[in-house]
Amino acid sequence: MLTIEKKFEALATENAPGQEVRQAAGNIDNLVRGKPLTGTPVDFSHGDVDAFTPTPGSFEAFSDAVDTGGRQAYTEYRGAADIRADLAQKLAGFTGAPVAGDGMILTAGTQGALFLSVAATVTTGDRVAIVQPDYFANRKLVQFFGGEVVPVQIDYMKSEDNAGLNLDQLRDAFASGVKVFLFSNPNNPTGAVYSAAEIAAIAKLAAEFDVMVIADQLYSRLRYSGVTYTHIRAAGLPDNRVITIMGPSKTESLSGYRLGVAFGASSAIDRMEKLQAIVTLRAAGYNQAVFKTWFSEPVGWMDHRIQQHQDIRDDLIKVFRGAGLRVRTPQAGSYLFPELRPLDVSLNDFVRLLRLQAGVTVTPGSEFGPHWSSLRLNFSQDHAAAVAASKRIVEMAGRYQR
Amino acid sequence: MLTIEKKFEALATENAPGQEVRQAAGNIDNLVRGKPLTGTPVDFSHGDVDAFTPTPGSFEAFSDAVDTGGRQAYTEYRGAADIRADLAQKLAGFTGAPVAGDGMILTAGTQGALFLSVAATVTTGDRVAIVQPDYFANRKLVQFFGGEVVPVQIDYMKSEDNAGLNLDQLRDAFASGVKVFLFSNPNNPTGAVYSAAEIAAIAKLAAEFDVMVIADQLYSRLRYSGVTYTHIRAAGLPDNRVITIMGPSKTESLSGYRLGVAFGASSAIDRMEKLQAIVTLRAAGYNQAVFKTWFSEPVGWMDHRIQQHQDIRDDLIKVFRGAGLRVRTPQAGSYLFPELRPLDVSLNDFVRLLRLQAGVTVTPGSEFGPHWSSLRLNFSQDHAAAVAASKRIVEMAGRYQR
Repeated sequence: MLTIEKKFEALATENAPGQEVRQAAGNIDNLVRGKPLTGTPVDFSHGDVDAFTPTPGSFEAFSDAVDTGGRQAYTEYRGAADIRADLAQKLAGFTGAPVAGDGMILTAGTQGALFLSVAATVTTGDRVAIVQPDYFANRKLVQFFGGEVVPVQIDYMKSEDNAGLNLDQLRDAFASGVKVFLFSNPNNPTGAVYSAAEIAAIAKLAAEFDVMVIADQLYSRLRYSGVTYTHIRAAGLPDNRVITIMGPSKTESLSGYRLGVAFGASSAIDRMEKLQAIVTLRAAGYNQAVFKTWFSEPVGWMDHRIQQHQDIRDDLIKVFRGAGLRVRTPQAGSYLFPELRPLDVSLNDFVRLLRLQAGVTVTPGSEFGPHWSSLRLNFSQDHAAAVAASKRIVEMAGRYQR
Repeated sequence: MLTIEKKFEALATENAPGQEVRQAAGNIDNLVRGKPLTGTPVDFSHGDVDAFTPTPGSFEAFSDAVDTGGRQAYTEYRGAADIRADLAQKLAGFTGAPVAGDGMILTAGTQGALFLSVAATVTTGDRVAIVQPDYFANRKLVQFFGGEVVPVQIDYMKSEDNAGLNLDQLRDAFASGVKVFLFSNPNNPTGAVYSAAEIAAIAKLAAEFDVMVIADQLYSRLRYSGVTYTHIRAAGLPDNRVITIMGPSKTESLSGYRLGVAFGASSAIDRMEKLQAIVTLRAAGYNQAVFKTWFSEPVGWMDHRIQQHQDIRDDLIKVFRGAGLRVRTPQAGSYLFPELRPLDVSLNDFVRLLRLQAGVTVTPGSEFGPHWSSLRLNFSQDHAAAVAASKRIVEMAGRYQR
């Protein structure tokens, strides 16, 4: 029997984004090479909501909810009915497939939606296919509920027209008895978007092997020019085989409100509500009202935000490629995942040195799968500061190169 | 192996407070006796935050946090360090025992603290002692994590000077290999407060049998005149054997912000943070700032609020006892748990009929343990409306009496 200490070992958070403050500085003084690099500190571990501020009207929606009082403080566990009805329409339009009124739950952040959806579909001994690399919590969630991770690779460096999903591996995984396939699209950390052909292949295999698909589409609104995006919930799978997860924490900079939504398979959504009742009761009542601003942003606001991110993306890629570091062009989202050449120090030590010597915080690629010597950067930052900080990363990578 | 459907069956929420809107009306038309009873509808399933409004300054604290921006949106998973430091001082003073800086986590509501604390201490096969009656989620949480519930009774009708804990049962339970003891003090649903002698006995047995104690003290600030309250964390147990849970959702009417806190055993708190990282990431960042108003309410505000609740309590007790229904005087909190005499209809049908015919929503006692024909009322309501609604309950109880 697993002890509680063993069970939690897999949930290590010390290298997770935002937790750097809890790391012991460690004995890295003896590793230091060269002088400190000056410049505005940049925390690439998450987006800077001071550089890209929350959606206009979001605070007012919250304020109105406080004035509304009890009705908005105490909603059903799955969220206020009027807000769900409004969202169902908007998300049906966005994803190209109907959303049933009872096939939706509002959650405490997209993380909450992810937690509940894995909890509602995975139990001890279940095999779950997970993409590598992909969002680090996916693996942890499966392990926490006693599931067995079956990795499937994406070769995201091969082409910028698809994610590079290894379909043979996916078929083998599904054929081996996988019950759930969990993936992010756009992919976190690479920004790769799955092509229409890849989504069709996933849907076909999921139908053939009766696999539940959980699609984390957190970044699916932040798509760069010329990118075609395919929603798997509109790809012909039976409705009860797909759960889609989204939220306004990223592109819309509403992370401080902790809002997410899961929609699709209604029997799973029912289980998610039962569980949410003992996890957090509900997404914070007043906060739920901020969803009213979602997909209702001022005209042109989203296009402008996307353009600003595209400009930062392009400048950062120039910096890294100019220094000979390989990096995929993200088709969507605000993550860059540049590869480092072999270093004389460990990846975690390099990440600590970056913070100590260069004022730059990044997430080590090893969080996203077993074998990445890459860094993940959330480039939703002040443009000039991000460019300067990327130059410091390149300089540091040179100093510590093997 | 438990299927996912079986695993979730125990989490039924249809009779849980606030979920009445999702109940099918059911075929109760043929059960109806007499005419509808008119009066202001009252929802006793939770407190009315329109009758007792949120702490002064709470919205302003939230608003300031939004203005603060990124630093408050993205805190450590366990919550903003400055807010934790401030709370640690206040809670040490309130509970009479020091709170270590790293022995505290801010959570998404008190429910979040409860979920994380059970998750961090209970795993498959662990025996967990649970009081009957007690908050309905306690049992569900233990079952969800594969633990085995070992019930321990309180005879809360015997005396109003203690909770009536059956200490022989508690000793037998602990001796049988119980790993965790989870209880609410004041007790939910009865409002019973454990006496100093009961708390000392729990602490002594927990030390003897090395049991982890989780004390849910959500209502420990709302204490009526003449009541002595003993914090178990100050009762001499080793610090690593007690987790105390509180939050400002009830007395302070801040439920719409979803804020809770767990403090004590730091190794368990560390695990709770690791888990929170994959459950909700953190308590909503801006919301955390509302904690600044906690234990810092305007002078006299809390005393006034307690007096108002005591007045409602006393009037409702008069109504129920005047009709010959037994009810314990709650020493703390805002719950009443009056006993019904045997009915001609099931308890759940009576609860539905109350809503349909009398505009009164209550929580059936069967949610709190296997054998209570009581109703739970949260009397944090408009005073006059609550008295009138209680009279309608009495009238309905008479109509449907066997």
